[in-house]
Amino acid sequence: MNLGTRRMDLKAILSGDRLALSRLLTQIEKDSEQGRQALNELFPHTGKAHLVGVTGAPGTGKSSLTNQLAKHYRNPPDGPARSVAVVAVDPSSPFSGGAVLGDRIRMQDLAGDPGVFIRSMATRGSLGGLATATAGLVQGLDAAGYEIILIETVGAGQAEVEVAKLAHTTIVVEAPGLGDDVQAIKAGILEIADILVLNKADRPGVEAAERALRGMLNLGHPIERVFNHHGRRAEIEVPHEESPTDKLWLPPLIRTVSTEGQGVPELAQAITEHRAFLETSGELQRRERARLESEVHDLLQKAMMNRWRQDTSDERYQRTLEQIAARKLSPRQAVAQLLNGSAPQ
Amino acid sequence: MNLGTRRMDLKAILSGDRLALSRLLTQIEKDSEQGRQALNELFPHTGKAHLVGVTGAPGTGKSSLTNQLAKHYRNPPDGPARSVAVVAVDPSSPFSGGAVLGDRIRMQDLAGDPGVFIRSMATRGSLGGLATATAGLVQGLDAAGYEIILIETVGAGQAEVEVAKLAHTTIVVEAPGLGDDVQAIKAGILEIADILVLNKADRPGVEAAERALRGMLNLGHPIERVFNHHGRRAEIEVPHEESPTDKLWLPPLIRTVSTEGQGVPELAQAITEHRAFLETSGELQRRERARLESEVHDLLQKAMMNRWRQDTSDERYQRTLEQIAARKLSPRQAVAQLLNGSAPQ
Repeated sequence: MNLGTRRMDLKAILSGDRLALSRLLTQIEKDSEQGRQALNELFPHTGKAHLVGVTGAPGTGKSSLTNQLAKHYRNPPDGPARSVAVVAVDPSSPFSGGAVLGDRIRMQDLAGDPGVFIRSMATRGSLGGLATATAGLVQGLDAAGYEIILIETVGAGQAEVEVAKLAHTTIVVEAPGLGDDVQAIKAGILEIADILVLNKADRPGVEAAERALRGMLNLGHPIERVFNHHGRRAEIEVPHEESPTDKLWLPPLIRTVSTEGQGVPELAQAITEHRAFLETSGELQRRERARLESEVHDLLQKAMMNRWRQDTSDERYQRTLEQIAARKLSPRQAVAQLLNGSAPQ
Repeated sequence: MNLGTRRMDLKAILSGDRLALSRLLTQIEKDSEQGRQALNELFPHTGKAHLVGVTGAPGTGKSSLTNQLAKHYRNPPDGPARSVAVVAVDPSSPFSGGAVLGDRIRMQDLAGDPGVFIRSMATRGSLGGLATATAGLVQGLDAAGYEIILIETVGAGQAEVEVAKLAHTTIVVEAPGLGDDVQAIKAGILEIADILVLNKADRPGVEAAERALRGMLNLGHPIERVFNHHGRRAEIEVPHEESPTDKLWLPPLIRTVSTEGQGVPELAQAITEHRAFLETSGELQRRERARLESEVHDLLQKAMMNRWRQDTSDERYQRTLEQIAARKLSPRQAVAQLLNGSAPQ
């Protein structure tokens, strides 16, 4: 594909051509030279979308909630419809192919809407590669003019922290009765929640789950921590201002029944309020900066690794690996040697 | 701490001193110069332990299963006791602090046993950092002479693939009735399973869960894939040999009730058989090699990033980030500029 064709594609993407956008996203995911070039040229058009992460363990119904949120933005009871893109990074998401039939059917009404664009990510390869590719997809969709970009990931371990870095607003979805040790994992995930959703709120155990979550929210909140955890003050993020209430966001807990759409308007309202908070508090710029810095970090690492690979013979690399396997050299000693004899930090 | 003290510590570690080992692991987790030096010197003593990954979604009871496995190795009905280390990378694990009281109590009988060493990992920071630190902890425990090292991680998304790289044998734990969309996620996780455990097998839905898992196991098996998925042959890992049955491992499915210890001897037997398979098939060397290569890759990346940071002024870096934030420069263009004008790959 020559330069002329590519330029034309970009123009098409910027004017809302879905097929052109779809092709671009494929190039971005493949990390092709064409995709990279396009991202460079589209970058000045980014920064307008509101990026909303939706994360939660399998079984919380976060895909169905994402679906309902998208529908809500297309038909809001108050104000104009907004265009929505969904990026599904979760292998269990019905958006990304692993759906039970019911979920797929519930999603049909979104599929025909020209104001909705759904894209799923392959989750193979390294998390670093995944984060870079997702950042690229989101930039493509942002440039194409989607106002709300919902990024859905499975929430456990490290992946959702990477999403939180990518999103302006992070929604953590929980559900009652997911198993004995689910409670324990929440403490870590709660730290990244801007909005906490208790989905499947029509199920038994919802009261107990809400109590537990509220307990953890209180522990997790910076001000509460200062007063509650004596002697651990050094580990605490203390607000800069003396009067921090106007600068702080207290994550609301919202009950939803996503299969019925119940609680979804309230969730959309909370997202709007969080956006307003981000803008007035200066937190938006801080998050944008952190997000871009994290992307630069990933790209730097990748570029340096590629450059090193080009400069190093495969034979030398293989010989070194053999010395490690024979326990003649530790991995760290090998790295120092591979980087031309100087000691790595 | 001077060199003499450090050397003494290593000797103590190699002769089974738990306090010295504990201090070493702290240094490894902190990634201190002392920890790195010690790992270099201990590396020739590694490579003896059998590394067993235990992964599964929250609620599958994998911590309790890990606990029971450790107990089994300490009191096997046949043969001598074996020393066991547990590395818990899962924030929901009772080993790593997020336990409900019942789990903690069940774990008490392990705590006093000198043949058992339990270590939990902080899961903050990047996954890359986590993988490197976990690899270091495992090397420390391996050098200290623990024969079985159980590495417990929460199984969802990318983290368990990193564990599979680290472990010789990967156990994927499932449980009946964890939620509607849990089934969907399994296809991806099953690909890394050497042994599949259906825990909580006394719960309703166990028959349906086993049927679903067996269905997916069959799909996931390389030979089956060749015959079942027409037209997708290029994506399939085809066995090298014409008669592959003696070279292939068919992941067994084992039912357990970990709270009762039911099925645990069968699981331990499967681990022993998998070890034998790894040794006779040449797969052990292949996995060791892949494991070390992945560690070298992570360390190389880190070392190059640190070197670059030392060579680049913070002022220049911050100025570049500002240009990105102002959308004057795309992240990729910024990286090319930061790496002295040459284009990154």
